[in-house]
Amino acid sequence: MNFNVAVIPGDGIGPEIVREAQKVLDAVGTKFGHVFNYTEVDMGGVSIDKHGVPLTDEALATAQKSDAVLLGAVGGVVGKDSWYELPPNLRPEAGLLAIRKGLNLFANLRPAYLYKELKGACPLKEEVADAGFDMIIVRELTGGLYFGERKTEEVDGVLTATDTLTYNENEIRRIAKKAFEIAMKRRKNVISVDKSNVLDSSRLWDKVVNEVAKDYPEVTLTHMLVDNCAMQLVKDPAQFDVVVTENMFGDILSDEASMITGSIGMLSSASLREDKFGLYEPSHGAAPDIAGQNKANPIATILSAAMMLRYSFDLDKEADAVEKAVEKVLEDNIRTVDIMSDGMTLVGCKEMGDEIVNRL
Amino acid sequence: MNFNVAVIPGDGIGPEIVREAQKVLDAVGTKFGHVFNYTEVDMGGVSIDKHGVPLTDEALATAQKSDAVLLGAVGGVVGKDSWYELPPNLRPEAGLLAIRKGLNLFANLRPAYLYKELKGACPLKEEVADAGFDMIIVRELTGGLYFGERKTEEVDGVLTATDTLTYNENEIRRIAKKAFEIAMKRRKNVISVDKSNVLDSSRLWDKVVNEVAKDYPEVTLTHMLVDNCAMQLVKDPAQFDVVVTENMFGDILSDEASMITGSIGMLSSASLREDKFGLYEPSHGAAPDIAGQNKANPIATILSAAMMLRYSFDLDKEADAVEKAVEKVLEDNIRTVDIMSDGMTLVGCKEMGDEIVNRL
Ligand SMILES: CC(C)[C@H](C(=O)O)[C@@H](O)C(=O)O
Ligand SMILES: CC(C)[C@H](C(=O)O)[C@@H](O)C(=O)O
Repeated sequence: MNFNVAVIPGDGIGPEIVREAQKVLDAVGTKFGHVFNYTEVDMGGVSIDKHGVPLTDEALATAQKSDAVLLGAVGGVVGKDSWYELPPNLRPEAGLLAIRKGLNLFANLRPAYLYKELKGACPLKEEVADAGFDMIIVRELTGGLYFGERKTEEVDGVLTATDTLTYNENEIRRIAKKAFEIAMKRRKNVISVDKSNVLDSSRLWDKVVNEVAKDYPEVTLTHMLVDNCAMQLVKDPAQFDVVVTENMFGDILSDEASMITGSIGMLSSASLREDKFGLYEPSHGAAPDIAGQNKANPIATILSAAMMLRYSFDLDKEADAVEKAVEKVLEDNIRTVDIMSDGMTLVGCKEMGDEIVNRL
Repeated sequence: MNFNVAVIPGDGIGPEIVREAQKVLDAVGTKFGHVFNYTEVDMGGVSIDKHGVPLTDEALATAQKSDAVLLGAVGGVVGKDSWYELPPNLRPEAGLLAIRKGLNLFANLRPAYLYKELKGACPLKEEVADAGFDMIIVRELTGGLYFGERKTEEVDGVLTATDTLTYNENEIRRIAKKAFEIAMKRRKNVISVDKSNVLDSSRLWDKVVNEVAKDYPEVTLTHMLVDNCAMQLVKDPAQFDVVVTENMFGDILSDEASMITGSIGMLSSASLREDKFGLYEPSHGAAPDIAGQNKANPIATILSAAMMLRYSFDLDKEADAVEKAVEKVLEDNIRTVDIMSDGMTLVGCKEMGDEIVNRL
């Protein structure tokens, strides 16, 4: 089969990690008889430099016409890159928000999984690392505070800033359904996270999630307050299977969950529309400090490409093959510098891509 | 000297832990020549049962007339206690929000400190627990999403809920000042946490914190995004001295910080007004499952009483004495069940209070 992939290398280590993911996709194509056609799209700082904005209408249109989008990373360093002297809506990260909204990518899937080979990197104590954990955070990505109306104005001479957190039942229903569908393919456990003891939006969230749960009688649903969830992730991460939550809580909790693996260079993500279309990117950022030095870990991006195969192209067998090849590389003690430890073989970004291709 | 303390035992283990803190205060009084007069105030579930609301106007007025407030804990179990069948503004926790606003307690101080005797309970790996950490989170407590306008309504037949996050420069300035003042008495390091790459309120936060920083040239100020902070707390808690942040971020991050100590039964908190007045309570909740069984750990409440001595009554020597007595009890291997480990002497709530009094 033929697939059209919009590729957004972005900033920092973006170009080099995306290159390795494309290499792996091409190897999958050769092995399983598919063709992946790539169209390059500018976004983030690189787009600001070329076009003056972090995402042009043409770039968005190109992404829209593709079958799926593969993204490296965007962003630089505040106080160092001149991008951050621009107004907020013109900075690199604004491109990310614009493409999410523009492509209607409402469901962000963030797996947090502890590879047994990397449990030494886990910042939690040994018993917890030994027991391992495997969760997926389903974050609503196009609503809430990040997309609400905002304003800064003088009220009686006093500067006052307001952001708005709005959710309607349809927005909640579709993300809840996505979470339950994913849970059905996993350990059938959903924890819905909110602050329903304070917020109206959380109470509506609760109500709608409860309604959706009725269609999935096999799935166990629990509600957890966001402050408690921030604690439980550290205390007992193994209790989580699927976590579903609104945009900002998901931002905070998915990053916390990433960090308790200790190896964010390994963590993929998918941002999905209601149909099969999606955008795939590593959970980590653009790491400008090591850009262009062949030091970056391409695995998160390669695993994001595997998610693309699975969720957008229905190529489960092919996705499995990529994930197995990554596991094999770990078993064979091959490491990039971010996951390096004693007795392992250190390789660069490009070599890690090659080693994964060799094991496909 | 004479001090009038409003005492709110509250629900669950509240009454028993508050009783031990009063015992310690009285011992301090005897030793140092002070008199603490107590007036009991109803709040939470107990107030709902007696008066139909979680906080009556009279209760608030009594608290207002005192020199400081000592609080146990409020709340029960959703789905078990009938309190949770009431509308949200009549539930036990609404009393907490009402008293914070009613007494203008805008600054919530949440220390997170790892006692070396309890480092075995720390959920982080040994190197990190061995290195220890000692931070204080300064949470804005009367603004932001928790006190903004909210509504749930049908928009074109679709249920829609909205919460509002508002801060003005004065609200930000007073909490920032508080954080810098505290930093001056500690390691002179402030990390201000926000989401300034997205929110207007965070950008105003940034701006005002930067202005306040100019008055404290000895203090190092860094800005950190909330998602990154959730990661850094797990990765390297020792980097934090004073963290200052808005209400909801502070709620989430201070609970995460509590949990990385592994012993939330030890953690005190203070909620302060612009003058010396304040409300003091343990960081943990009402733990209804062990209420009335003499199993609760009263130390967090006793340390909160020590904060009261220090911040509201300017009795530094007395506060030191209480804190030293708590350290002594730990050194002497005396433990309540929540912090129990092999070879230690297990005691109940009441006995722990006695042991601390004995060491004053
Ligand atoms: C860059 C920022 C707007 C973004 C977000 O918070 O959504 C990032 O933190 C993420 O999680 O993808
Ligand atoms: C009960 C609830 C409203 C409260 C809050 O979030 O402020 C609690 O979680 C706390 O942190 O004191």
